[in-house]
Amino acid sequence: MNKLKIGICGWGNVATGLFKTLQTNAAEIKKSSNLEIEIIAIGARRDNPKCDPGNVIIERDIFKIIDHDIDVIVELIGGVDVARELILKALNAKKHVVTANKAVIFNHGDELFSVANKNGVKLLYESSVCAGTPIIKLLNQELAASKISKISGMLNGTSNFILSNMEEGMEFEPTLKLAQEKGYAEPDPSFDIEGTDAAHKIGILSSLAFGSSLPPKDFYIEGINGIYKDDFKYAYEMGYTIKHLAIAKSTNNTIDLRAHPSLVKLDSYLANLKGVRNGIEVETDLLGTLHIAGSGAGQEATASGVISDLIYLSDSKIREVNNINESSELIDFFDLDFQYYFYIEASDVSGVMASISSIFANKDISIESISQKENLNDDLVPIIIITDPFKEKDYQELVDNLLALDSVNKIRSIRIEPQ
Amino acid sequence: MNKLKIGICGWGNVATGLFKTLQTNAAEIKKSSNLEIEIIAIGARRDNPKCDPGNVIIERDIFKIIDHDIDVIVELIGGVDVARELILKALNAKKHVVTANKAVIFNHGDELFSVANKNGVKLLYESSVCAGTPIIKLLNQELAASKISKISGMLNGTSNFILSNMEEGMEFEPTLKLAQEKGYAEPDPSFDIEGTDAAHKIGILSSLAFGSSLPPKDFYIEGINGIYKDDFKYAYEMGYTIKHLAIAKSTNNTIDLRAHPSLVKLDSYLANLKGVRNGIEVETDLLGTLHIAGSGAGQEATASGVISDLIYLSDSKIREVNNINESSELIDFFDLDFQYYFYIEASDVSGVMASISSIFANKDISIESISQKENLNDDLVPIIIITDPFKEKDYQELVDNLLALDSVNKIRSIRIEPQ
Repeated sequence: MNKLKIGICGWGNVATGLFKTLQTNAAEIKKSSNLEIEIIAIGARRDNPKCDPGNVIIERDIFKIIDHDIDVIVELIGGVDVARELILKALNAKKHVVTANKAVIFNHGDELFSVANKNGVKLLYESSVCAGTPIIKLLNQELAASKISKISGMLNGTSNFILSNMEEGMEFEPTLKLAQEKGYAEPDPSFDIEGTDAAHKIGILSSLAFGSSLPPKDFYIEGINGIYKDDFKYAYEMGYTIKHLAIAKSTNNTIDLRAHPSLVKLDSYLANLKGVRNGIEVETDLLGTLHIAGSGAGQEATASGVISDLIYLSDSKIREVNNINESSELIDFFDLDFQYYFYIEASDVSGVMASISSIFANKDISIESISQKENLNDDLVPIIIITDPFKEKDYQELVDNLLALDSVNKIRSIRIEPQ
Repeated sequence: MNKLKIGICGWGNVATGLFKTLQTNAAEIKKSSNLEIEIIAIGARRDNPKCDPGNVIIERDIFKIIDHDIDVIVELIGGVDVARELILKALNAKKHVVTANKAVIFNHGDELFSVANKNGVKLLYESSVCAGTPIIKLLNQELAASKISKISGMLNGTSNFILSNMEEGMEFEPTLKLAQEKGYAEPDPSFDIEGTDAAHKIGILSSLAFGSSLPPKDFYIEGINGIYKDDFKYAYEMGYTIKHLAIAKSTNNTIDLRAHPSLVKLDSYLANLKGVRNGIEVETDLLGTLHIAGSGAGQEATASGVISDLIYLSDSKIREVNNINESSELIDFFDLDFQYYFYIEASDVSGVMASISSIFANKDISIESISQKENLNDDLVPIIIITDPFKEKDYQELVDNLLALDSVNKIRSIRIEPQ
C-alpha cells in the first residue's frame, strides 16, 4: 500500500466535491491503485457550510499549504493571477501540482510547465479540459507513439446542448433559457455561447499535441449565437447538421487553430453526439481516427480527473489486475431477463396471430408489440414480435411450443439490450 | 533522455510492424516521452524476408532473449502454450513483459498477473484488446477513481463491418465475402463471426474492471451468423438496429458476462458506429457514461499500444508539455480555405438568383448548390447556397458585394468542416 499526502487549495464546490469523492470512492481507489490518498491540509479562506472537513488542518492563508509535509498541491481556487502565483510557489518548492483550472493553464501554461520542468516536478491538469472526457491522458500516454495531425470536436457541453435542441426545432433564445433552468448554462452564458470556453480548451490541447504556445497568439473564435433554427432545416436538406467545433490541425509546421460553428455531415461521428456532451475526434498516423465522448462535467467528473492525476503521480500507477474478486461470481445466463425480438414465419391462415399470442400468454410472457408483415409468398407471412422482458430459462420452452404449432414454419430471435 | 532496452520475441507481421514503427516514429516517441527505446535482441525462429533487422542480435531460441541485459520482453509470438511459458520465465527472471496476445491473457491471465506481482514486475497488454482503441489504459488509469458498473460494445471490427453492410441491405454471405476480399475477415472467419474474439476481449475487460477470473467460467457466446437482412428491416420499423455486443456488468457482487447479437435503439451511441470499428461504452459512478471508438486494428495500431505500454514502464511517462515547437506557427485564419453555407434573404423578384450568382462568379467563387426555398412572406425568399472552398480573406468583400445588391436583405453564413 502506498500513501500520497496532498494539500487542497480552495474550498468551493470543486474542492468539496474532491473531498467527498476521496471518501466515498476510497475503496475503489485502493483497489485500482493500491494507493491511499491522505488530505493533510486545506486552504480555505472561509468555511463552507456544505462540507465539514473533519480533523483536516485548515489554513486561512492558502499559500501556507505549501509549507506542510505534502507530496502534491491540488489547486482548485480558480481564477488566474492568484492561481498562477500559488502554482509557481508550489513548483518552486518542488511540490507536484494538480489543477483543474483551465484559465490559468491557457493564460500561463508555457511559464508554468517550464518552471515545473526546471524543478523536476510535474504539473498535471486532466480536469482542466473536458472533465469527464479524459482527453489529456489519452494524448499524453495512449497516443504517445503516434503523430497527431488533427484534433476536433465539441468541447463545450452547453453549446452542444443548445444546438442539439435547435436541431429538434427550438429557437436559440428559449433553448438558452432551458439550458439555464437545467443548470447547464450560467446566468451570464457568454463564456459558453461565444465560444471562449471551447477556444481555451482547444488552445491547451494544441499545446499538448503540437507544442503551440500558451497563451496562444490570437486565433479565430466565434460562438453559436448567430445560428437560427431554420439553418438546421436547410442544412439537413443537404445532408448536414450544425455543431460548434474547436479545431487544432498541424500541417508542415503550421497550426490551424480555431473555434466556430461548422456544418458537418449528418452521418459523421460528431453529428451524432447530442446533448450536454463533449465529443472529440483525434486523427493519428498509427491508429487512424480515434473518438472519445463523455457527458460528465460536474464536481464528480472533475474529482475523477484530479484523482487520476494523483494516482499517476504516485508510485502505484497500475491496477493490480490479479486482484481477483473472490466474492463476485458470474450470473447464470439463464437467470437473466431479456426483452426479445422474434421473427416468426407462419402460415397465412386466419387465427394464426391469436394462436401464437396464446403461446406467449400461457408462459406469462407479455407482448409489447406484434405485427404481421407483407407476405413472403401465397402461404407464408412473417410475424414480428417484441416481448416484455422474461427469463432466459423460459426461452427454449417458448420456442419449442411455438414450433409445435402447425402454423409456425420457422423462428429466429435476437435479444434487445436496453440503453 | 531516458533509455529503455527491450527484447522482441516473435518476428511475424506484428513484430516487424513494431520494429518499423520504432524507427519511423522515434522522433515522435522522444518528443512525447523523452524516451529512447533500444531493441537489444530479437527472438526469431527464422528470418522474415519482409524486414531486415539490421545489426540487432537475432536469437533462434526465443527463450534466450530473457538472458540479455534488457528491461522489457515484448511477447509477439502469439498462440497460448509457448507464449505462457515464455512470459512466465521472463516474469520469474524479473523482467517486465508487454504482450499483444489476447489468447494467452484470456486463458492464463490470473496465473500470469499473479506471477508478475510476486516478482514485482509488470505485465502490460494494451494491444491485446482492440488495438487502436486504448480501452485498457482508460480503465486502468483515467477511470481508476470511478466505480465501473457496465462495459458494453462492439469489440469485433469484422462483425461490425458485416452487420453495418447488412443494415444497408446486403445479405450475410456476400458481406462476409466482401470482408474477406478487403482483408477484414480471415479465410476461416469463424473466430470473428461466431463471437469468440469479442468474448475473449470482454472476458479480459471484465477481469480488469471487476476482478473476474481469467480464464472465466463458461459464459454465453453467440455470433452473427444467424442474422438475416430482413431482421434489420423489421428492427428498423420499431426503432432499432442490430449490433454484436459484448457485455460485462457488475451488480451486487455478481457479474453478467456475455457476447451475442442485440437490438439497440437507432439513436443510441453504439447504433451509430458503423464499419470496421470498435466502439465501447463504459458506465461509471463519477463520469457517467463514457464512449471510446477506434478503427485501427492493423500492425501499426498494435505497435502503438505496445509502445504506449513501453513508455509507461519507463521512468519518463509524461510528455514534456513545455516542449514548445518554436518552428511551428499559427496559420493566419484569413489564409485558410473553407466551403461555406450561405443563407441569403432576398426579394422575390425575377433575376434575383442570377444577380446573386454573378457576385460569386465575379469573385471566382464556385457554387456547389443553390436553391430557392419557400417564401418567408410576399416579398422575401431564402436562397441557400453551398460554395466550393474559397479563401477566408475573400469572405468579407463577397458579403459586402452581396449586401450591396438592392434585392438582398440579410445574409448569414456557416463554414463547412470536411470529415
